[in-house]
Amino acid sequence: MSAITAPKGFVAGGIHAGLKASGQLDLSLIATADGRPVSAAAVFTSNRLAAAPVQVSRAHLATSAGRAAGVIINSGNANAATGLAGYGHAEQMCALTAAELHCQTEEVLVCSTGLIGIPLPFDLIAIGIPRVSAVRSAMGGADAAAGIMTTDTLRKEVIHQGSTFKVGAMAKGAGMLQPNMATMLAFLTTDAQVEPAELHVMLRLAVDRSFNRLTIDGAQSTNDTVIALASGQAGPADPSELQEALDAVCSDLALQMADDAEGSTKTVIIRVEGAADDLQALHGARSVANNQLAKCSWYGKNAYWGRVAAAIGASGIEFDPDGFTISYGSTVTAKAGLAVDFDEAKMAEYFENRRIHITTDLALGDGSGEIITIDLGHGYVDENMGKS
Amino acid sequence: MSAITAPKGFVAGGIHAGLKASGQLDLSLIATADGRPVSAAAVFTSNRLAAAPVQVSRAHLATSAGRAAGVIINSGNANAATGLAGYGHAEQMCALTAAELHCQTEEVLVCSTGLIGIPLPFDLIAIGIPRVSAVRSAMGGADAAAGIMTTDTLRKEVIHQGSTFKVGAMAKGAGMLQPNMATMLAFLTTDAQVEPAELHVMLRLAVDRSFNRLTIDGAQSTNDTVIALASGQAGPADPSELQEALDAVCSDLALQMADDAEGSTKTVIIRVEGAADDLQALHGARSVANNQLAKCSWYGKNAYWGRVAAAIGASGIEFDPDGFTISYGSTVTAKAGLAVDFDEAKMAEYFENRRIHITTDLALGDGSGEIITIDLGHGYVDENMGKS
Repeated sequence: MSAITAPKGFVAGGIHAGLKASGQLDLSLIATADGRPVSAAAVFTSNRLAAAPVQVSRAHLATSAGRAAGVIINSGNANAATGLAGYGHAEQMCALTAAELHCQTEEVLVCSTGLIGIPLPFDLIAIGIPRVSAVRSAMGGADAAAGIMTTDTLRKEVIHQGSTFKVGAMAKGAGMLQPNMATMLAFLTTDAQVEPAELHVMLRLAVDRSFNRLTIDGAQSTNDTVIALASGQAGPADPSELQEALDAVCSDLALQMADDAEGSTKTVIIRVEGAADDLQALHGARSVANNQLAKCSWYGKNAYWGRVAAAIGASGIEFDPDGFTISYGSTVTAKAGLAVDFDEAKMAEYFENRRIHITTDLALGDGSGEIITIDLGHGYVDENMGKS
Repeated sequence: MSAITAPKGFVAGGIHAGLKASGQLDLSLIATADGRPVSAAAVFTSNRLAAAPVQVSRAHLATSAGRAAGVIINSGNANAATGLAGYGHAEQMCALTAAELHCQTEEVLVCSTGLIGIPLPFDLIAIGIPRVSAVRSAMGGADAAAGIMTTDTLRKEVIHQGSTFKVGAMAKGAGMLQPNMATMLAFLTTDAQVEPAELHVMLRLAVDRSFNRLTIDGAQSTNDTVIALASGQAGPADPSELQEALDAVCSDLALQMADDAEGSTKTVIIRVEGAADDLQALHGARSVANNQLAKCSWYGKNAYWGRVAAAIGASGIEFDPDGFTISYGSTVTAKAGLAVDFDEAKMAEYFENRRIHITTDLALGDGSGEIITIDLGHGYVDENMGKS
């Protein structure tokens, strides 16, 4: 699969520049086929310790009025908390890429993922950029998707076929994939024709409906970035169809990230319904998803609904202690706020699944919402204690 | 030590009523020596799934206008999410205790700690209450402190000697002490003379400065309760001295809880200084204390300051990415937002301590604040995955 180049007008590639000691691919390029800038939009981390590449990309998009010809991405180093030198390196990564694409420096965006606070080995990247530019092609999507991986065990790619356009996308997983790495990066291309401002609105909506409903450990990285490029070669698209396509692609990638979160054994989909409104439902679901005690119980394959109820009760949303129903899969474990006997053997069998659905009905209103997360077990600790 | 009876006018006791299969003490009583009500104040969990004993105690304090003659406490069952039956049981615990103390039902408070959603074995408690009442004495504080333990490995007691009064206190630890148990209970007695309303203001301040600055996993229990009783037998106390005494006693208990949090290997004191104001400092410190990635790094004895900086950056407080300094103990690991070389051997030695101090100076203003927490490792997961 070369997902990111599936829409018309894009090329991509990935090489080993030398940042990863393992010899795996670590430098990726996504570019327009002709090197001309197209509509571009991005959503960045709101962490105030935003990494240098985030700052540079944000500035470039503002200067270019939402036009970009390429994105250069390295794994193996986050270029975060690296001061002015780091900022200069991110800027130079764009300049070197622009020289290869024959575009303006401000028309190149940059992303990095890896360790915080370590100077970027810029010499390796400076040598790598002409090399990854030389190998870019319409078949290079798989290598580009590999070059952004940290300890993702699988490339994360998806292609969406619309009625008149395509969307292609690739991502690297959020959180705890490797000691000290927690960044989520996602890239989308489409051949639909859409103005930068409109693309930005659509992308932000899609991110809110997907990646922002995925929480691994409640932490937000210094480098989280989602970028979309639209070549326009397929002509105008129906806006609502394009929005649905972006939503679907981002949701697909978010679920791939959860399923491949190293150190985890379960993808857990927390649904709250019957809430006073959708916002409260989401808030309650997020409170459960970030609750360490609940996360440990899923690792233990333990349908201990009391922790789910306690997490919602502590979230501050409207809550009737005598009204809630909690189900694991199709099995009701609590009703009207009281324990319900259930088939333990059936529950044990259900917990053998990778994906677990926990649904709480608050019986208060029509609000509903879903948050995707993972469990918390020995593997998570091992991945994140920092001794590799 | 019989801490809770150290101030004049109090008796206490603890027995095994049969709730704990281990045979350990599980029912405790604190009462005034003469059974007469004295000034009482309490701070309860704000979880909307407040357990029955929390609801009953809150109602009793309101009815009695802040006067109580005793507190009956069971471990081994939280009496939470137990519906009307649970509420009735909590009320009856007070009525049975009142019959022994010859006071009004509304002058007795009640606490429970243990599993959520399991009906209280009330028969055992009904038989136990006359027994624990019969053994209450001025020497019974240690048994009372033992009777509220879950898997605390040590009784948590403290006596504060003021110039004219004493404060005695006992507690059981917050969080993760046993599969499915996460409740923090604390009880204070003093012979200082103080009106209920004044005692309530002082207790709330003391709780804000101590237990509310202890976070184990960001979760708030359905049963958390802090209760203070003041017999007045030592006469009026200097208000600021009494406040300092309550602050000191609560802070001491909070640190005892962190040090004895089963499944943990480190007590970590997160200090933020140089913040725009104290509230921002506390908010930033709490963000670090609740960050799963940071908690795992402490378990790994890894001075990975990037996670501390990223957690503060994500907290939303004012933050200068190029201004912060982070120290572990006396060792500076980052300065002006950049990595600083440090002595790895000295750091490894420092991480052999139970208590680790991590200080971030934001270099923005005069605000400072401290949050106490623990690490996140295999022990925590084992305690909380729910297979005992």
